[in-house]
Amino acid sequence: MNSKGVIRILGFVIGLEGIFFLLPTLIGLIYKEFFGAAVYFATALVCVLVAFLIIKVFLKKADRSKGFYGKEGFVATALSWIVMSLIGAVPFRVTGDIPNYLDAVYETVSGFTTTGASIITDVESIMHCNLFFRSFTHWLGGMGVLVFILAIMPMAGGSPLSLMKAESPGPTVSKLVPKAQKTAMILYGLYIALTLTEFLLIVFDPSINVFESICHTFGTAGTGGFGVRNNSVASFSPYVQVVTTIFMLLFGLNFSFYYLLLLKRFKEALKLSEIRWYFGIYFGAVALMLIDLVIKGFGFGKNLIAVFFSCASVMTTTGYTVADFGEWPVFTHVIFFTLMFIGGCAGSTGGGFKVARIILLIKQIGRDVRKQIHPNRITTIKNDGKAVSEEVLASINRLFITYVFILVISTLIISLDGFDFTTTFAAVMSTYNNIGVGLGDICVGDSFSMFSHTSKLVMILDMLFGRLEIIPMLLLFSPSTWKK
Amino acid sequence: MNSKGVIRILGFVIGLEGIFFLLPTLIGLIYKEFFGAAVYFATALVCVLVAFLIIKVFLKKADRSKGFYGKEGFVATALSWIVMSLIGAVPFRVTGDIPNYLDAVYETVSGFTTTGASIITDVESIMHCNLFFRSFTHWLGGMGVLVFILAIMPMAGGSPLSLMKAESPGPTVSKLVPKAQKTAMILYGLYIALTLTEFLLIVFDPSINVFESICHTFGTAGTGGFGVRNNSVASFSPYVQVVTTIFMLLFGLNFSFYYLLLLKRFKEALKLSEIRWYFGIYFGAVALMLIDLVIKGFGFGKNLIAVFFSCASVMTTTGYTVADFGEWPVFTHVIFFTLMFIGGCAGSTGGGFKVARIILLIKQIGRDVRKQIHPNRITTIKNDGKAVSEEVLASINRLFITYVFILVISTLIISLDGFDFTTTFAAVMSTYNNIGVGLGDICVGDSFSMFSHTSKLVMILDMLFGRLEIIPMLLLFSPSTWKK
Repeated sequence: MNSKGVIRILGFVIGLEGIFFLLPTLIGLIYKEFFGAAVYFATALVCVLVAFLIIKVFLKKADRSKGFYGKEGFVATALSWIVMSLIGAVPFRVTGDIPNYLDAVYETVSGFTTTGASIITDVESIMHCNLFFRSFTHWLGGMGVLVFILAIMPMAGGSPLSLMKAESPGPTVSKLVPKAQKTAMILYGLYIALTLTEFLLIVFDPSINVFESICHTFGTAGTGGFGVRNNSVASFSPYVQVVTTIFMLLFGLNFSFYYLLLLKRFKEALKLSEIRWYFGIYFGAVALMLIDLVIKGFGFGKNLIAVFFSCASVMTTTGYTVADFGEWPVFTHVIFFTLMFIGGCAGSTGGGFKVARIILLIKQIGRDVRKQIHPNRITTIKNDGKAVSEEVLASINRLFITYVFILVISTLIISLDGFDFTTTFAAVMSTYNNIGVGLGDICVGDSFSMFSHTSKLVMILDMLFGRLEIIPMLLLFSPSTWKK
Repeated sequence: MNSKGVIRILGFVIGLEGIFFLLPTLIGLIYKEFFGAAVYFATALVCVLVAFLIIKVFLKKADRSKGFYGKEGFVATALSWIVMSLIGAVPFRVTGDIPNYLDAVYETVSGFTTTGASIITDVESIMHCNLFFRSFTHWLGGMGVLVFILAIMPMAGGSPLSLMKAESPGPTVSKLVPKAQKTAMILYGLYIALTLTEFLLIVFDPSINVFESICHTFGTAGTGGFGVRNNSVASFSPYVQVVTTIFMLLFGLNFSFYYLLLLKRFKEALKLSEIRWYFGIYFGAVALMLIDLVIKGFGFGKNLIAVFFSCASVMTTTGYTVADFGEWPVFTHVIFFTLMFIGGCAGSTGGGFKVARIILLIKQIGRDVRKQIHPNRITTIKNDGKAVSEEVLASINRLFITYVFILVISTLIISLDGFDFTTTFAAVMSTYNNIGVGLGDICVGDSFSMFSHTSKLVMILDMLFGRLEIIPMLLLFSPSTWKK
């Protein structure tokens, strides 16, 4: 284990977070929240100092030529996410907006993992600097903090790809171009462009102010879902809701799609099977839900935007809400649970198991049936015309199994709190898949503050397991990682 | 496709069912239910006649030397189970005890698949001949009707193992001895011996009469769970409940265990990893539940037998009940759901995903973590000292994935009925894993009659998918099976 390499990454992450703390400091100054601004500024100084000590003093003689590969990439990523969450929680606690440190960590992990499950009951009473930083964690966590570091500085020694692989969602890393740094730059370039576009489309609407527009856009871009109003997005104009629906769907798309568009390879982009399945599942869910709502007498017109919005919000794992779908029929809830599990595309900012993996799971079921009929025929599974290796298929299958096991264990522990089964299961599905809305006893807009400390800790781990797609976190907790 | 071979098997199954109809005929005569006896006798005659026509007349010139392998084995098994359920439902309908034919099919499928979910609301008003046949389906379905046919007559041509493989639960067929027929005979021998032992242990108890003892024993042996009293097992003496607990656990064991005991290979038997895991999971669940019940103020003493009984009943997928555990805390329900999914041992009469497969799923997760740490080390997974082939592992993983997909789709369709999520999910878990008890709106002892026809049809399919472990049913519905 190249421990010094891992510590060096942690140094970069802490330093970067320190620099980012200057943004809420500025917001604090603008809104004359001087105490808040001072807290963020002080935390920023400490972070930068610690980072300097780690990188320049402690690791002065670190052997930079030493390799940095698979295992280190996973461990560094898992540790980075934990450390930046622990640090990010400090200002929430010190400013007093979240009086309990575990709650503050919950909120920060929920932010970085783009979950959006909040323990704050009255979000409109929170300082602007805190609200801003809270939403900013969504934006940074969506595309990834290590990908950001890769984009802005060259990595000496080892394979920077091991970090991207650990942090980027999907069965294979979306390597747009051969060099990892270039890929990271393109990804962040596209991300910033899309974010700016959404911001410009909504900022002029009278139902939303400039500050809210910024936070709301961060939450959409990272598919996070922290709201700045107590009723989430319900009080914004239908125009803002429609734009948000479209952008949630856009941020849930595989970013390779945009890269192909940039290269003017339109035909190839539109033929990507993941994109087709993604929209197929989305519109299928919308149609089924609308039919069920009409049959059960909930009405069509008044739920039209709500259904399009809610399906996009749940499937892309954003978690914004415009209607209390807890009141809708159970059938819609089962659809929501299914969408929660499916999630967005690989290589997007969305969570869940990812459409790309679902496709490969389903194709394998089909192959299994064919194999029973023609046992001697050799069949490879193709995706977008390319054969998918058996190793990739097997690893997806094992990920799925691990996913279900963690789901069961989490549900078991959280059920100790004694909430009903729907509430318990929804809390796990919502945090594990990084969505953030509850069902059952947690109505739309309610916070997760009612759960016990144990349950909150389980949900914190679930959010991290979900965002980092299990393996990095499993490695972190495996004793054999730390042997010798 | 060797269609004539498949039709020949169906002929045997129909004939055998006809002969078995003579048992309820006899019961009808004993209890002076002459109409019921006449119905069973007439159905028996028709079945035997049809079987004779199929085997001796229609298939007179059938080429018996033609092979009968994998695909045919699966298709013949799936079709046999459907045909014998459709026929078995006839007397229920004609005697008028179940006025609707779909309900009668539901009841029969629930019987043969050893599910035990009933649509009868007042079981004490049902004729003895019907009650007897209903419980007898559990006994026959538990070890398998094709295994029975294999045990009593030699199969010409092809591989009889293909039938056992399709009907016997577990990742690999429990071939005790090289010859399939001998294996089938040993299995049924052990099965009959265990059944008789249980019957003799309870029949002298004053709280249960002889007829009830027979039906109750059939339900335990097949891990079925149809009760002959409206409150299931609650009004039997604690002695009967304890004996039932023990025998449910015994019938949930891998029958290889008994075979090793017979051969006096005690050490080997006790070292079987599946047996250890099985009891480990069972006692773990009992302990967790008891602690939770005590902490939440439900009391220890009065729930002691109930917890031991209920965990055994759910894990072995029997479905007998002695207490209304719907009133217990949610944590116990999540444990029940987990036990439902795990199920009994492979090669037992129990349902669920089977302990043997769970072990291999968990071992693979461990290997995955180790592989990330030491990518170049080649590791095989061992079970009971033998390496498990990658093909078996991969097929278990794919079965698990298919299992979850069918679970999700079934829950979606049944949720259209509008019962709450717990009720819906419990109905699916209960029928799919062949358990038979509900949760939520279906209290202990309630029947499944409240569901819509569509939902009942889905549950019928789920019971068959669960009992035959997916592949045979999938093949039956795959168009490519029927091509050419």
